[in-house]
Amino acid sequence: MTTENVPVVEKIMNANDQIAMINRKKLDDAGVFAINIMASPGSGKTSTILRTIEDLAPDVRIAVIEGDTAPVTIDSDKVKALGIPAVQINTGGSCHLDAPMFSRGLEQVDLANIDLLIIENVGNLICPAGFMLGSHANVVVASIPEGDDKPYKYPNIYRGIEVMIINKMDLLPYVDFDMDYFRKGVQILNNDAVFFNISCKTGEGVSEWTSWLKNRIQQQKELAK
Amino acid sequence: MTTENVPVVEKIMNANDQIAMINRKKLDDAGVFAINIMASPGSGKTSTILRTIEDLAPDVRIAVIEGDTAPVTIDSDKVKALGIPAVQINTGGSCHLDAPMFSRGLEQVDLANIDLLIIENVGNLICPAGFMLGSHANVVVASIPEGDDKPYKYPNIYRGIEVMIINKMDLLPYVDFDMDYFRKGVQILNNDAVFFNISCKTGEGVSEWTSWLKNRIQQQKELAK
Repeated sequence: MTTENVPVVEKIMNANDQIAMINRKKLDDAGVFAINIMASPGSGKTSTILRTIEDLAPDVRIAVIEGDTAPVTIDSDKVKALGIPAVQINTGGSCHLDAPMFSRGLEQVDLANIDLLIIENVGNLICPAGFMLGSHANVVVASIPEGDDKPYKYPNIYRGIEVMIINKMDLLPYVDFDMDYFRKGVQILNNDAVFFNISCKTGEGVSEWTSWLKNRIQQQKELAK
Repeated sequence: MTTENVPVVEKIMNANDQIAMINRKKLDDAGVFAINIMASPGSGKTSTILRTIEDLAPDVRIAVIEGDTAPVTIDSDKVKALGIPAVQINTGGSCHLDAPMFSRGLEQVDLANIDLLIIENVGNLICPAGFMLGSHANVVVASIPEGDDKPYKYPNIYRGIEVMIINKMDLLPYVDFDMDYFRKGVQILNNDAVFFNISCKTGEGVSEWTSWLKNRIQQQKELAK
């Protein structure tokens, strides 16, 4: 490959993805592992984050970036109440975070003093799928009462994920939810996703998820050495 | 007002809203009452539609337009199974219906032979709020397990609604959901919304909702005379 090819290669990548790559480099240089949590409104993204913090902090040093479509601090206040730094990004009505927004959020995070950065994307099963941020792993949180047909109806969000968390397992006895049908729906789109069935209410399954996360944080630290 | 003002007035209205007004006129001329149902994925839009059909048909002649972000017929198949005509609109990945899409859907509906047209918008609490379709009433379906903070976090969707349905009341004993806090959140944005608490699983509250709907269908018929 000659140097003449470089500008062509750069043009293939859109502006968002170029900034995402810069964000990724910043995280890699600092040895910080970053996850982008996406979900439908009310599936329990914030509860999953709070449970994750309770399980990992203070051994793992965490910061959270909260994406919200409205200027409310409900979620970031809950994170801060656990003593964890939280940066809120108001998307101004937009239905997803993008790489430039995440970049501005990153500027407010003390990367030198954290191990894990959790991004809570805007509650939406469609828009966030189209925008790479620069995080290392995409995570979707589904919840039992949302129903088992979501992977079939909102396929794009499941394609690029590394982790599929199924939350509100405590509600399984009260809801018609066919776990095999749901899993099959995700696996058709993405055969590599790791599944964790959890309940933020009872704590069921949370430690399996945070063990996976600890391994990935450790790997990222080693890569940065 | 002189006729010179007319072009200026027309310019104020965007292309979507102009088409929405044409859609509205078509419905009005036919004496058909149309509702636009919006909600988060998994709140029970389809279940609410099925319960509504069971309660009103065949006395009320109904058709359904299904907006989906993916080319799946899961929801429209359920409607057709009840003997009700269903037109599916695939938004091609977009997070909402708009007036031109609805217009194309309308062309496939036999307006002369129905009383009620139900539009199931794409499951999303953000995007559909920005696009008038030409329906007579916007309806949001929330569900108990989604949590009571949604009006505070996704305010725009609640502003222009006439009806607020709170579904999955059967799950109330198992979930922390403060009904007063939720209602207050909606009422701050919209003091005119009518509330119906329902359970599509048990049938609780459904007849109150369908009674309201029957009145509105009747009013629409009288206006068309």
